[in-house]
Amino acid sequence: MKKHTWTTSLLSLSLGIIFGSTNVIAANEPIQPIKAVTPENADVTELGKMLFFDPRLSKSGFISCNSCHNLSMGGTDNIKTSIGHKWQQGPINAPTVLNSSMNLAQFWDGRAKDLKEQAGGPIANPKEMGFTHEMAEKVIASIPQYRDHFKKAFGSDEVTIDRITTAIAQFEETLVTPGSKFDKWLEGDKNALNKDELEGYNLFKSNGCVQCHNGPAVGGTTYQKMGVYKPYETKNPATGRMAVTGKEEDRNFFKVPVLRNIELTYPYFHDGEAATLEQAVETMGRIQLNREFNKDEISKIVAFLKTLTGDQPNIQIPILPPSNNSTPRPQPF
Amino acid sequence: MKKHTWTTSLLSLSLGIIFGSTNVIAANEPIQPIKAVTPENADVTELGKMLFFDPRLSKSGFISCNSCHNLSMGGTDNIKTSIGHKWQQGPINAPTVLNSSMNLAQFWDGRAKDLKEQAGGPIANPKEMGFTHEMAEKVIASIPQYRDHFKKAFGSDEVTIDRITTAIAQFEETLVTPGSKFDKWLEGDKNALNKDELEGYNLFKSNGCVQCHNGPAVGGTTYQKMGVYKPYETKNPATGRMAVTGKEEDRNFFKVPVLRNIELTYPYFHDGEAATLEQAVETMGRIQLNREFNKDEISKIVAFLKTLTGDQPNIQIPILPPSNNSTPRPQPF
Repeated sequence: MKKHTWTTSLLSLSLGIIFGSTNVIAANEPIQPIKAVTPENADVTELGKMLFFDPRLSKSGFISCNSCHNLSMGGTDNIKTSIGHKWQQGPINAPTVLNSSMNLAQFWDGRAKDLKEQAGGPIANPKEMGFTHEMAEKVIASIPQYRDHFKKAFGSDEVTIDRITTAIAQFEETLVTPGSKFDKWLEGDKNALNKDELEGYNLFKSNGCVQCHNGPAVGGTTYQKMGVYKPYETKNPATGRMAVTGKEEDRNFFKVPVLRNIELTYPYFHDGEAATLEQAVETMGRIQLNREFNKDEISKIVAFLKTLTGDQPNIQIPILPPSNNSTPRPQPF
Repeated sequence: MKKHTWTTSLLSLSLGIIFGSTNVIAANEPIQPIKAVTPENADVTELGKMLFFDPRLSKSGFISCNSCHNLSMGGTDNIKTSIGHKWQQGPINAPTVLNSSMNLAQFWDGRAKDLKEQAGGPIANPKEMGFTHEMAEKVIASIPQYRDHFKKAFGSDEVTIDRITTAIAQFEETLVTPGSKFDKWLEGDKNALNKDELEGYNLFKSNGCVQCHNGPAVGGTTYQKMGVYKPYETKNPATGRMAVTGKEEDRNFFKVPVLRNIELTYPYFHDGEAATLEQAVETMGRIQLNREFNKDEISKIVAFLKTLTGDQPNIQIPILPPSNNSTPRPQPF
């Protein structure tokens, strides 16, 4: 094992020399840099962007994917639990859409296997967008300019929920955030992190945070129990994985959230009850790791976490084609 | 008078020949082309764009200017009357923000003298964004990155509602839509309109629509009574100008809406009760002009109206600076 690591390091070093890259540090780190994504099919992602911003996928005509996964605000709504159709209070904190393709599954309880499956959920959830898949298809299909986009993207102008969610998911797959200070450090720029940030990263590793928050997204790869050493006190009734598997042993297991752009995606935890990063770090230490972090440690870990903010996606807002006389009208009230 | 017109035409023609332009037609038309706007101060408009998209100007943290004046949808929300704080039903149809600087005053009843005065209204309206100016200032002032933008824009980092609304208004002044088919025609491209569209324009003029819908914005320059020949039947209690002046003779006088981008800004009238352009044209003819337009006339006028859709503003969505530990939190529920 030691030999393997050494070989890998040597290989990286050699490749670094050969290719002029400097990603020596990254090879031994449990977190990997985020890579920019080139869309597989630009017509599909462009259509997906339009649909992501189109509130006509909701019954009210007021709520779009971007309402709760706001790309101006780290792909979240920055409120504890989301506002849904007729201002219903959502059951859980809206996870960021940024880098979400790196999650092992979607939603806090992982009940959707991928972004495509996820995208259909809120549209038809009476507490979220309050619509039906059939009505969403009917609205979009009534608009000739949309049908042209479907033809370009999929080869025919047929509008189905399967195609709608495929396009949204492919757009979402482009929403990655490379270029963070931490990634620059991972890629060999030793000055990218200051002393506190680096000490924070070392505390993050030495205290075991990284056991769950690892990989390029710094999370999203496993389900873990919320409350390993001490129970997590919350009024939120979500049971996590148990809701999917029906097994008592899965109670309070949630998908480990990604920590990329964590400075932007407040408030924290599935119930949104941690308002600040300091509070989140303190709680995680106490209930997950049995550590009482002191103020200095918390401050350094938070400094490290803030280096995970990457370049936010450059989004030109889409101009949506208008409804016409045959388009079903929204029902907001 | 005749001589003056002739002289003007000749002058335009001569200038056209001298400068190689072809704007001969426009000189005699009651509608003028929209001109692109160069921002007076790019730092102010950039700040204004951020604030326009920032839902933290609302109590809930969910509603921004762009929620009801959605720049993906012709600067409107495309619903009869807007959804406000806690899903309250707004009293009136949200007018488009596009080309709104050309209005003689703002709101349907003209109660705000300009865009700056308008911008403060919804923030503090308990039925709209439900916040207070003091809280809006406090939220924005708590964010150092915003204070930097205020310093760049205004010379000091002081955050006041006056500066907030100045910046929003200056951003809104850039939201103009040149380049429509009709403008191309006005500027001399005779092929820009087809036969029906041109006949529609002539009907629009010969039947008197243009008496109120004129100028570059095709409206916005006067208050007129809704229901000149026949009363306008509506359940909407708005009394128009009377609410501002207190005078009975101003009852049901409303600002003439701009018709630029009218294909995008459905539904129509202050109550949003006209779902289609055909319905709006039929009603206007009947109650304002004492005309019973036939199907063919309506179809041609609508064809003309659709040539008023201009180039929509190119907007890169702003990345909003995050709240921090000192930022007051939204209160959505």
